[in-house]
Amino acid sequence: MFNSISSKKVYEQVIEQIQESILIGELKKGDKLPSERELSDRMRVSRTSIREALRVLETMGVVESRQGEGNFICTNIEKSLIEPLSMIFKLNDGTWQNVLELREMLELQTVKIAAIKSTEEDCRELKAIVDEMKKETQQSSNKKEIVRLDQKFHKKLVSMSKNYLIESLFVTSSKLFEGFIKDAREKIIATSWTKEVLVDKHDAIYEAISCKNPDEAYNKMKEHMDIIRKSYEEMNNTENC
Amino acid sequence: MFNSISSKKVYEQVIEQIQESILIGELKKGDKLPSERELSDRMRVSRTSIREALRVLETMGVVESRQGEGNFICTNIEKSLIEPLSMIFKLNDGTWQNVLELREMLELQTVKIAAIKSTEEDCRELKAIVDEMKKETQQSSNKKEIVRLDQKFHKKLVSMSKNYLIESLFVTSSKLFEGFIKDAREKIIATSWTKEVLVDKHDAIYEAISCKNPDEAYNKMKEHMDIIRKSYEEMNNTENC
Repeated sequence: MFNSISSKKVYEQVIEQIQESILIGELKKGDKLPSERELSDRMRVSRTSIREALRVLETMGVVESRQGEGNFICTNIEKSLIEPLSMIFKLNDGTWQNVLELREMLELQTVKIAAIKSTEEDCRELKAIVDEMKKETQQSSNKKEIVRLDQKFHKKLVSMSKNYLIESLFVTSSKLFEGFIKDAREKIIATSWTKEVLVDKHDAIYEAISCKNPDEAYNKMKEHMDIIRKSYEEMNNTENC
Repeated sequence: MFNSISSKKVYEQVIEQIQESILIGELKKGDKLPSERELSDRMRVSRTSIREALRVLETMGVVESRQGEGNFICTNIEKSLIEPLSMIFKLNDGTWQNVLELREMLELQTVKIAAIKSTEEDCRELKAIVDEMKKETQQSSNKKEIVRLDQKFHKKLVSMSKNYLIESLFVTSSKLFEGFIKDAREKIIATSWTKEVLVDKHDAIYEAISCKNPDEAYNKMKEHMDIIRKSYEEMNNTENC
């Protein structure tokens, strides 16, 4: 006749407790969770509820189960953003312009922060990538290799922001981007005039960062992003014809 | 003696199929899912596996179950980003500077896009909020009311970007922000000199957007963000003393 007022299920309460432990810093990346039996004893719930909770956290990319070893907090938790963001995108009839806006936002903020926070070691690594790019475009023009170096450059850049929130969103937006226009990057790089322009832009971005000039780094990245946007627009116009 | 090579569990495959339907656009926001029985028949898996999958999707904030009505695709799916982002933040020893960097990034990109995409109706609504703010600060100085108007202004602004990715990340970063420094917004607004400066800045941001000037909107938002950053820095210095 009477129903329980709390509608929260037991496994949901278990999930909340584990998330809470992460949020207050008790559980850290790579940490091993107590065994299912121990969790069940401590929280005074059935092992079935513990297993259900772990299953959800595993699917969310928060916990990983290693056979014979137990359950661990994921080290690559940024993967847990990809699916929700992809679904938000689709459920709201997202366009490639939306993804590009997100990408521009991340890249522009990244270079500004990188110009402030970067170490000499960071700059050396970034320069090495630009040098490789130059060599590659002059010599072999191996498209796949240039794509790889391009990705390496932008990934290094975002790591120089030393902000995991931005890094995680970058990884997520890259996935979204790739899924959206699969080989666009290669097509853009294939057009020879853009290829050299791209290398020059990367060089200019590196220079501004190594001179610790956030405004200049922003402007150079903006120019780079404008080229990319233009290429996408042209590509989409062609496809619609 | 021999183990199955595929390690993917049945409920995980069910989740993948539902996510795939969202990603290819078959399932949209608010859509009702087929009944558990129908899903189980169509996918040829047990109802237990269907229930497990739905449970995970529910916890992730993708599906909502309405008693007596069935299962639906969530309309407020952006909630599904909050927990992963909060956990990424904590697991990487995030600082309030990291959250502020994310926030600045979202606000700055938002005003640039808003200045391009905003309609006359958008601008009227934004102006109404600024006018209310002015009135409130001149008359009553009700802190809670100013906080509410401030939030309303920034929320309206982000909706003018007409980019759900950015909107969702904004909602997510706001939650992260609030959890981090709970009553900072009120403290900042409480300092009377900042209060008037803030209203003037909001007005200037509105003006630049209504004139369709993205660079000016960016600069005004940058000034606004610099004030906020300074207030946080002062607050944190005080707290550390």
